Amino acid sequence: MPQDKFDKVMILAKRRGFIFPSFEIYGGVAGFYDYGPYGSQLKNNIENLWRSYFVLKDKCLEINTPTITLYEALKASGHVDEFTDMTVDCKKCNQSYKVEDITKNNKIKCPTCGAELKDAYPVNLMFSTEIGFGKSRDAFLRPETAQGIFTDFHLLYRYAREKLPFGVVQIGRGYRNEVSPRQGVIRLREFNMAEAEVFFDPKDKSHPDFNDVKNKEIKLFDNKKEMKISLEKAVKDKLIDNQALAYYMYLTQEFLLNSGVDYKKFRFRKHADNELAHYATECWDAELFSERFGWIECVGIADRSTYDITAHIDSTGTDMYALRKYDKPKTVEVQKIVPDMGKLGPLFKDKAGEIKNILGNMDVKDSGKISVKIDNKKIDIPKDCYKIVRTKEKQAGEKFVPHVIEPSFGIDRILYCVLEHSYIETKKKGEEYHILKLNPKIAPIKV
Amino acid sequence: MPQDKFDKVMILAKRRGFIFPSFEIYGGVAGFYDYGPYGSQLKNNIENLWRSYFVLKDKCLEINTPTITLYEALKASGHVDEFTDMTVDCKKCNQSYKVEDITKNNKIKCPTCGAELKDAYPVNLMFSTEIGFGKSRDAFLRPETAQGIFTDFHLLYRYAREKLPFGVVQIGRGYRNEVSPRQGVIRLREFNMAEAEVFFDPKDKSHPDFNDVKNKEIKLFDNKKEMKISLEKAVKDKLIDNQALAYYMYLTQEFLLNSGVDYKKFRFRKHADNELAHYATECWDAELFSERFGWIECVGIADRSTYDITAHIDSTGTDMYALRKYDKPKTVEVQKIVPDMGKLGPLFKDKAGEIKNILGNMDVKDSGKISVKIDNKKIDIPKDCYKIVRTKEKQAGEKFVPHVIEPSFGIDRILYCVLEHSYIETKKKGEEYHILKLNPKIAPIKV
Repeated sequence: MPQDKFDKVMILAKRRGFIFPSFEIYGGVAGFYDYGPYGSQLKNNIENLWRSYFVLKDKCLEINTPTITLYEALKASGHVDEFTDMTVDCKKCNQSYKVEDITKNNKIKCPTCGAELKDAYPVNLMFSTEIGFGKSRDAFLRPETAQGIFTDFHLLYRYAREKLPFGVVQIGRGYRNEVSPRQGVIRLREFNMAEAEVFFDPKDKSHPDFNDVKNKEIKLFDNKKEMKISLEKAVKDKLIDNQALAYYMYLTQEFLLNSGVDYKKFRFRKHADNELAHYATECWDAELFSERFGWIECVGIADRSTYDITAHIDSTGTDMYALRKYDKPKTVEVQKIVPDMGKLGPLFKDKAGEIKNILGNMDVKDSGKISVKIDNKKIDIPKDCYKIVRTKEKQAGEKFVPHVIEPSFGIDRILYCVLEHSYIETKKKGEEYHILKLNPKIAPIKV
Repeated sequence: MPQDKFDKVMILAKRRGFIFPSFEIYGGVAGFYDYGPYGSQLKNNIENLWRSYFVLKDKCLEINTPTITLYEALKASGHVDEFTDMTVDCKKCNQSYKVEDITKNNKIKCPTCGAELKDAYPVNLMFSTEIGFGKSRDAFLRPETAQGIFTDFHLLYRYAREKLPFGVVQIGRGYRNEVSPRQGVIRLREFNMAEAEVFFDPKDKSHPDFNDVKNKEIKLFDNKKEMKISLEKAVKDKLIDNQALAYYMYLTQEFLLNSGVDYKKFRFRKHADNELAHYATECWDAELFSERFGWIECVGIADRSTYDITAHIDSTGTDMYALRKYDKPKTVEVQKIVPDMGKLGPLFKDKAGEIKNILGNMDVKDSGKISVKIDNKKIDIPKDCYKIVRTKEKQAGEKFVPHVIEPSFGIDRILYCVLEHSYIETKKKGEEYHILKLNPKIAPIKV
């Protein structure tokens, strides 16, 4: 089989110490790669360039949370139930396949041994593990760095002096136990991400720096044709829902082009409704073109709305609201729940304290049934366990759940595309040379 | 209970956005902490200061390998069998304890519920997971970053132009599924490490820069008293086995003091023989003093000798030797194994090819039984499956397994000690202030 560009880039990348297949001496395993000395420097440089846009320019806060994540957090975020691929196994050789890959090739027999396939079933794509022994806790390796940010939102909001918008970033490993990855560095089971979660008031998705860049053009693909359009016009024409999304698309374009991405092999494409992840209301992908794989999603810029913060509030009862301040404090009439521990105690035993706390912080809007969620189970609270009282309260503002705009970068895919876009074949004195012409901003060796 | 310094530092660290307990809204889980905005910046600064010593000054190569590690690699490295703690469970409440913690407190009943304990048993401290579905592969989260370097040694040796000594570093997460960690940020289940593996010719453990620093003093503790001694004298008196170890101890001392560690709360302590890890022949710890925990091991500088590379050669048959070049090539008589595929094939089926390769690369020293190791199983090869021939071979040098000197840094412990050593209580106009007086080299905010 003749070598295509992917093969050539990967051969060069291995020889020059950019990328090695992991565990090669043990036969290797799909979806894992090592960065050698040049690759590692290139990765560090790309991540630091990214920081220069998101931390220095956009003033996001950087945090660092564990990759091992409690079951409870990922149950709440929807990943335990929704982060799945339909999978099918071979009846004979027991090899597993992603249904999407099989049907794409119109193969209804096992691509490996030709035998019949069993019925398709969904598998969860998270790597699972257990924390501790005996009384152990279920956990997963994080599928995204984002949940580590969301579960700290209330602390970070205070740190940011309770002002919106503010952004928090995290750079680190993400994991996805792909069914049978066959696309080299493009579909990794362990990968490097850089994510920003920027919190906005849903009533105001303007970005403070939007005016400075509103005339800049970005390149969009509407699934039919490419167009260049100014940020301002794209938002005005409702092509892009809001300023915040548009601003981060611009920042993304700047970062990618400065990393050495070929402008001709770059575009933004909007997700169709049936493509959206379980948490997203609008999403734009920055796609980079690769000769073997076609257009590859390298960045997703999603409007996650209130999805995640609401999920964590519902599951834990923590006050993770933001405050829209009134000009001066208002006295308002509110309905409060006054729990009766004499009734709650005998009925709910060791859970009674937690239920009391959740009830005490609850907003009562109607007089219907009241229920709380503990360990992801809904528990109805009998009417004799509490009283509802009307009381006057001084309020500094209106509580609300912030919206999240999330630019999420796949560092490894970007790094590979930068290598492919920089790859040049040339001849010198009749001999063939393969060269990587990297952008000085990110090149491992700076001359 | 009155607050001790650890409590005070952790309260300040949380309030100022340095360190948060992870998953606090889900009740938290021991051994996991988040770095908030200041903590994350401080961690980045400490890691970059470390790079300035090990990558810029000592010219080590930085690489980046997965945290998920194949069972086979960690079986070979000894971690599957040796990376264990003796553990004991309660008969009633099922809580698990490290035997060491229980006996230290002279408690033979369950510290939680007071019931009797079951018999002690060893547990492996690695987090385990599975890669893929159906035909899945067993894997662990790496207990150290080092194995990712060792399994690439042959590639890195070529990259370093086959010259010793050369060093390779990795900065990243390590994991240790502690039985029941009760020491906050000091005993984490997921932690940040910076490790250097420096490869030496066992006949020459001199360091090229030793002469420049030989008069510098380091602070040693011989388990009785502290002493300051020059590097040169420490090596000459055989207090420290070799120049290489001594040089990295010096580099470590420089790095720690420049990070803001208090010199009075710093020392090197040599491991007693019964303390050594399964892979080490000599090890010095850099210990930092903490008021609650006493002297804490924050850096280990170990001579791992040939342990790891030999293990991976034995398990895979890969040529991971270094070459001690002769002045000119020599013609020497060697014994070679010539495998007979006609016999190997029917006998070993799909393993025959692998066996042929291992036999072909094998050194034959005596005429005894020949066996190979595949998937960690020893397979004896019947005598009629091969011939041994004497042949003359031109050799450029003598092959040998390099020795490894490993300075291994626990970034989180260093970061905590830096905070504790920088913590100051002061009064201003009668009010008490708690202050962190961080070294400008690593402080998150640089004035």
